[in-house]
Amino acid sequence: MELKRERVREHLLTMIDSRRPGDAIPSERTLCATLGVSRPTLRAAVDELVATGLLVREHGRGMFVAPDKITQELVAENHVADAPRSRGSWTSTVLDLRTVHAGARIGRRLAISPASELVHVTRLRHVDGAPIALEHLHVPADLVPGLTAADLEGGFYAHLRRRRGIRPAHAVQSIEPTVLNEEEAALLEVPVLSPALLFDRTTSDTGGRPVEYVRSLYRGDRYRIVSRLTLGEGRADPAAEDVGRGGAWWGTVE
Amino acid sequence: MELKRERVREHLLTMIDSRRPGDAIPSERTLCATLGVSRPTLRAAVDELVATGLLVREHGRGMFVAPDKITQELVAENHVADAPRSRGSWTSTVLDLRTVHAGARIGRRLAISPASELVHVTRLRHVDGAPIALEHLHVPADLVPGLTAADLEGGFYAHLRRRRGIRPAHAVQSIEPTVLNEEEAALLEVPVLSPALLFDRTTSDTGGRPVEYVRSLYRGDRYRIVSRLTLGEGRADPAAEDVGRGGAWWGTVE
Repeated sequence: MELKRERVREHLLTMIDSRRPGDAIPSERTLCATLGVSRPTLRAAVDELVATGLLVREHGRGMFVAPDKITQELVAENHVADAPRSRGSWTSTVLDLRTVHAGARIGRRLAISPASELVHVTRLRHVDGAPIALEHLHVPADLVPGLTAADLEGGFYAHLRRRRGIRPAHAVQSIEPTVLNEEEAALLEVPVLSPALLFDRTTSDTGGRPVEYVRSLYRGDRYRIVSRLTLGEGRADPAAEDVGRGGAWWGTVE
Repeated sequence: MELKRERVREHLLTMIDSRRPGDAIPSERTLCATLGVSRPTLRAAVDELVATGLLVREHGRGMFVAPDKITQELVAENHVADAPRSRGSWTSTVLDLRTVHAGARIGRRLAISPASELVHVTRLRHVDGAPIALEHLHVPADLVPGLTAADLEGGFYAHLRRRRGIRPAHAVQSIEPTVLNEEEAALLEVPVLSPALLFDRTTSDTGGRPVEYVRSLYRGDRYRIVSRLTLGEGRADPAAEDVGRGGAWWGTVE
């Protein structure tokens, strides 16, 4: 099962990735023709990218690549041995596992050629039996030849370490809010347009080689993140620093 | 200017806070009568709490307090001196500043009596002139007698440190996705129901006394959080740990 609109979204994302903020993108009419999809299908994909801040529609002028997002970096040194756990029993179900071409956008994230093959795994994660997250995992095919759904049962990182000799070591992860489209909402058993957290992560091994790119949607009605922060005093002139950096260093803190 | 629905939401939140997951709450009809508000006003507030996972509507049965959210704890030791900055020039505008009674829910967060007074500040934060976040700040009134909007101009923490002798030291912050209601969307200049990040934070001073409770809404189309993670190897049997804890220790990581 491949989720509908995934192809249209991927095409649009690749287009956005290859342009700069403020650049125009082709009209809806042209895109429908290029992709061979109906206007409603295209529009749904565009609406999603507008809502999540990747495209901007300007009335009567067309569509443009949105300005870069304000990116708040949060430094976290997390180690499995120390990190606290969420309660509940986590399980997951593989919905789909297939080998596809990386394409330009995902290829770039994984530092492989667009023509390279990757394994795309779609899985649903449950807590105490209730669906909580929908996850799209992308792994360079040559790292995991013959990968099966069963291999993922004990955890993908465990599989990499124990069966493939690969040690995931670092990850860069972004977190954004989004709303669920019809298919995502159906799989997660919530109403369409329900709020969700979008996690986007690239993980590298001890040698710095990217080993996975993951895009996950977590139900907003069932999931949240909590942080305990230690606030510093700032240096020389903390008040002046507050003004310039106002709240920038940790979300809402000022 | 006090945001509409704030009173209804506060009443519902207090009610939810005093009950347990699965407990029934009064019918919409009863709540309208109690609060003296119209059905659409009440329903909008309820819809919001349903969408964000605090209430559950069961067809034909009524409304109930939702199950507890799955809480992912992220430990972060952030110091002003080390934390990276977001780009852009941050400014803020105070929309409203008033003294109100704490009420049960916010009183509990600030460890003060429901009858105590607190200063409620509503402010809009801008980056390079564009509205990015809507912030509700609640501070025990006796900590900041005579507080004015001008006092907040150099940063609230700077004001606390320099003028009040209060040193903010620790914070507990939760992050959830949500969608913006009509008023929030208008202030943030985005369409209604646009995705947003909801930050909820309680900050304490060096003596452990709560000094602020903040609820902020950040535009999802313009803001995201990025983390760099260092992955551990787990202990004795990492594979087995993965199964049990599957993805629990850091969002989508497994």
